[in-house]
Amino acid sequence: MRACLERIREKTPLIHNITNYVTINDVANAVLACGGSPIMAEAKEEVEEITSGCDGLNINIGMLNKEKAQAMLLAGIRAGQKGHVILLDPVGVGGSSFRRSVTEELLEKINFTAIRGNISEIKTLALGYSSSRGVDAAVGEDVTEENVRDMAVFVKEFSERTGSIIAVTGNIDLVADAKKCYVIRNGRPEMGRITGTGCQLSGIMTTFLAANREQPLKAAAASVCMMGLAGQIAWEHMREGEGNATFKNRMMDAISLMDGEMLERGANYEIF
Amino acid sequence: MRACLERIREKTPLIHNITNYVTINDVANAVLACGGSPIMAEAKEEVEEITSGCDGLNINIGMLNKEKAQAMLLAGIRAGQKGHVILLDPVGVGGSSFRRSVTEELLEKINFTAIRGNISEIKTLALGYSSSRGVDAAVGEDVTEENVRDMAVFVKEFSERTGSIIAVTGNIDLVADAKKCYVIRNGRPEMGRITGTGCQLSGIMTTFLAANREQPLKAAAASVCMMGLAGQIAWEHMREGEGNATFKNRMMDAISLMDGEMLERGANYEIF
Amino acid sequence: MRACLERIREKTPLIHNITNYVTINDVANAVLACGGSPIMAEAKEEVEEITSGCDGLNINIGMLNKEKAQAMLLAGIRAGQKGHVILLDPVGVGGSSFRRSVTEELLEKINFTAIRGNISEIKTLALGYSSSRGVDAAVGEDVTEENVRDMAVFVKEFSERTGSIIAVTGNIDLVADAKKCYVIRNGRPEMGRITGTGCQLSGIMTTFLAANREQPLKAAAASVCMMGLAGQIAWEHMREGEGNATFKNRMMDAISLMDGEMLERGANYEIF
Repeated sequence: MRACLERIREKTPLIHNITNYVTINDVANAVLACGGSPIMAEAKEEVEEITSGCDGLNINIGMLNKEKAQAMLLAGIRAGQKGHVILLDPVGVGGSSFRRSVTEELLEKINFTAIRGNISEIKTLALGYSSSRGVDAAVGEDVTEENVRDMAVFVKEFSERTGSIIAVTGNIDLVADAKKCYVIRNGRPEMGRITGTGCQLSGIMTTFLAANREQPLKAAAASVCMMGLAGQIAWEHMREGEGNATFKNRMMDAISLMDGEMLERGANYEIF
Repeated sequence: MRACLERIREKTPLIHNITNYVTINDVANAVLACGGSPIMAEAKEEVEEITSGCDGLNINIGMLNKEKAQAMLLAGIRAGQKGHVILLDPVGVGGSSFRRSVTEELLEKINFTAIRGNISEIKTLALGYSSSRGVDAAVGEDVTEENVRDMAVFVKEFSERTGSIIAVTGNIDLVADAKKCYVIRNGRPEMGRITGTGCQLSGIMTTFLAANREQPLKAAAASVCMMGLAGQIAWEHMREGEGNATFKNRMMDAISLMDGEMLERGANYEIF
Repeated sequence: MRACLERIREKTPLIHNITNYVTINDVANAVLACGGSPIMAEAKEEVEEITSGCDGLNINIGMLNKEKAQAMLLAGIRAGQKGHVILLDPVGVGGSSFRRSVTEELLEKINFTAIRGNISEIKTLALGYSSSRGVDAAVGEDVTEENVRDMAVFVKEFSERTGSIIAVTGNIDLVADAKKCYVIRNGRPEMGRITGTGCQLSGIMTTFLAANREQPLKAAAASVCMMGLAGQIAWEHMREGEGNATFKNRMMDAISLMDGEMLERGANYEIF
């Protein structure tokens, strides 16, 4: 995975993000911290021109509205024509029929290189339903040591059906194409107590994919390991009296300081 | 107040926020830090469905526009039908006739559980005018030791008229229903030198109200004590060379680390 | 430059910002940290009324859309009628024809007190083209020790043509009117690895201009020195294991803690 990160630092891929306003600053800083260069644009007047000059497109449906949905389609179709990598983060897709219908149209008209979400979001896409409550993974539906083999099969099948790499992040993370599934055990449970670690990862994953076109599955898995490892490093540095904000900052610090060797050494995964 | 906070950590209420983009990340993280789960949505296509699945609704009129005003109405009316707690934060309502007219319509059509603002915002709502200058409380109009008894009467009367709990935050904080007024002396003046402590408190107050339906006044007062206490703890931790950003982070840290006992011990209030 | 900063702390100018959502929180906090008071508003229904009550207007075209472009025009024309200082930050103007055409209209209809951008943005405005790649200055087009005298001439000429103070920030910063050019060597290269230092500077520069009407060039130059110096101070405080997020926070800390004497002592400039 070392090479995947080093490639980013050499190439500084330019990543176009259409994302929600809750975590938009964190996404831009996460792309910068891992070695990419972010640009945010979402007006239909400019998204096609902007995305044409980029190396990858990150579409995040949090805080969706009609104008943004239209811009996502325009940008996604253009990025596809240009052969750019494209990622979908279906934030809270189970939460409203509006998000579901927009996401269906995006999936129909755009070939996503990767789709990254929590388990309830991915289930909503794959199975058409989910016991999703808000934007967080529903309790009891996480990937566990007990169900991990079944879940890997499920994720591979969904990857085969969509032609996209599928990344499910949670307690145990899964990153799969139709044939192989990375089972990743990096990360800290406290990452779920701050907003935006998923959104940040989507920005980082798009950056990894854009810099490593020849091995997308490995690149996507490497980004998940990097984010989780950043959480572990951040947690180790926590001192008395430090809580959520400091943890969030230390995570970003760790991303910016991580090099290929640290990632290689810290990545904790097996392949099913 | 201990029980009010402990109830949040047991229930993890889901809070729908329609809020401004300046502090939207801080609001989401503040709801998480106190023990709730935030969701942000503001498209008219989905706000009714989203709010239906939540436990409380936080409406903040900062950076208002027409589409958001419409979404606030739709969400507020639906949340009312569902019997959810609803909070209004009339950010900068004295600053434009647009904000005033939208707020009037919101107040007409939605029964707010609570309204939280600085003194100039609350005066604008109660008296139709104010010497408001921007979004901060006008100098000389703060609640002081000299006028606190009169201000408590004013706030109780406004609560009686609206049927909402009224929270005025500033140097001394007041939280009142028609009969009782909590006079709170937590907090630090430095909290006004960073943006968003008021917006964060509105998110936290909605979370407290949603988890403590049977004692809303006490819950609202507890949230104000918690925010102020977090400011005090943060300030005590400040070291040489640390300024506004670190203060802001330490405040969020303190919220996430505070338990019921710390809140009970640190809350500094009397009841008029 | 000492007096320029002290004047802000005495006057607390109110700054109206129409800016992008990536860095909007940072801009508000930067205006507060240097001593101003920020207000954000962008609905056409209220921008004229809001800006009328302010002392300065900061227009930043990042994440531009049609509605915001219209609001910028309305606010800018009104602020001009009121004689307020007005700043333009042409973020990524080389990135799309939409941003270019909106910027052209803004430049036609509004007399900007100052225009602040990186070298590729300023070149796009001055020469109609640039090798801009995204929002960051194109490599090899920075102001260097080799070309600094020529660049100063170019910037002065562009200032003469527009009637605006021109600020180009990068490795070496230039701040010029038609006759004089401040060449500033404060700052750290690491400032470019986090998003929003330019946007923050635009908010701070508007605050400096609003509080120092009688010496705008010196005020603009002082704001650039302050931002760069904050970066240097932040960098000196960095400890083992600290990266981008902590650097960003320490920079805001340094802005909030800086007084006139520190600025005077630390400012590193010559005048061409």
